[in-house]
Amino acid sequence: MNNRAVVVLSGGLDSSTCMGIAKKKGYEIYPITFSYGQRHDRELNSAISIAEYYKCDDHKIVDINFLSEIGGSSLTDKSLEIRENELSEDIPNTYVPARNLIFLSLAIAYAETIDADYIYIGVNSLDYSGYPDCRPEFIDSIQNTARLATKRGVNQGNIIINTPLMDLDKKQIVKLGVRINVPFELTTSCYIGEDEACGVCDSCLLRIQGFQQNNYVDPIKYMSKNEETFK
Amino acid sequence: MNNRAVVVLSGGLDSSTCMGIAKKKGYEIYPITFSYGQRHDRELNSAISIAEYYKCDDHKIVDINFLSEIGGSSLTDKSLEIRENELSEDIPNTYVPARNLIFLSLAIAYAETIDADYIYIGVNSLDYSGYPDCRPEFIDSIQNTARLATKRGVNQGNIIINTPLMDLDKKQIVKLGVRINVPFELTTSCYIGEDEACGVCDSCLLRIQGFQQNNYVDPIKYMSKNEETFK
Repeated sequence: MNNRAVVVLSGGLDSSTCMGIAKKKGYEIYPITFSYGQRHDRELNSAISIAEYYKCDDHKIVDINFLSEIGGSSLTDKSLEIRENELSEDIPNTYVPARNLIFLSLAIAYAETIDADYIYIGVNSLDYSGYPDCRPEFIDSIQNTARLATKRGVNQGNIIINTPLMDLDKKQIVKLGVRINVPFELTTSCYIGEDEACGVCDSCLLRIQGFQQNNYVDPIKYMSKNEETFK
Repeated sequence: MNNRAVVVLSGGLDSSTCMGIAKKKGYEIYPITFSYGQRHDRELNSAISIAEYYKCDDHKIVDINFLSEIGGSSLTDKSLEIRENELSEDIPNTYVPARNLIFLSLAIAYAETIDADYIYIGVNSLDYSGYPDCRPEFIDSIQNTARLATKRGVNQGNIIINTPLMDLDKKQIVKLGVRINVPFELTTSCYIGEDEACGVCDSCLLRIQGFQQNNYVDPIKYMSKNEETFK
């Protein structure tokens, strides 16, 4: 095995923690970030800042605007309203069709090209909120598909997809991130995408809870916080 | 099940035959074509002509130039020479890392968005020339991954990936295509990508053999044909 890892980096709290973990393990990191017309292009700037913080020379930013062109998600289709303050079991309308399948397919192609043995992706099934492509059975399946789809899988053995956050909740992720000095002040989580985080969308709610439950102060700025949920 | 099918259409002989088959079965066809800086952009024009021939209103053309950016294939990297006249068992340097995995991931996202039950893709394992992502075990695996990756897979049942050419050789594909009136004069196969087909690359060789073995005349123009191979 070699020492290279492709890290899927969105600029959010989870992927940045994932990056910190891969870095701490001593891998040579190749971050890959997907730009797909998401509402929050603050994410892209965050991803760039985090790649710089970790001194990654080669940060691959991939334009996959096709995702916004085909629509079907409130994250990429501005005609759909993002549902607020509703952490439920249903698949939310922020679901982007087959997003992690597409992200991982491109990460697999990139890993094969630069001869990286590992891919890191910060999915987790506990804070899940109903995304099917964050479950371990999906990761197991795409791992198997990667082996069958690639020259590398046939000749050299598979690329290993690591999901170190899979079984952690947001409280544990925040705790771990703080311990290994992930620069959370550079990350962004809000679905709405203004200069300051909204404090009321699903993603803000999860993040705020994660810091509160650790009695940590979240270093980013919020427009407001939902007092009802966080009293 | 509904009546919609996404067809992965490259503009080549196989994908056009696949399109003809789906059309003949009576599906409402949604062709999707990937533009990725391949040497042969004639392919793109062929795909457009074929979609028009089959009267498809909505032809999705997706720019995935990332594939050429990451390199690793003689089809997208102009610094690599395309190997000529060598139909061997090895994986050729025209292999594009994880190409069919990426194509199918995007086709799955598109099918989910437009609520299509079927995807057609013209891969075949006999004329294989060593591409791992043309084998039935790869298709079975991505089919399973699609079920796990999507909201549709969770709620409604899987998208069916049909590969009607999987077990056919080029002779059989040409025969079938002629029988169902696929407009082969609009298709293109050459890897090199000049106005006329080179007649000597792997892809030209396979195509020429397919027509010759049926005693059919290939309606496209060639610069030359390799006399050694086709005497």
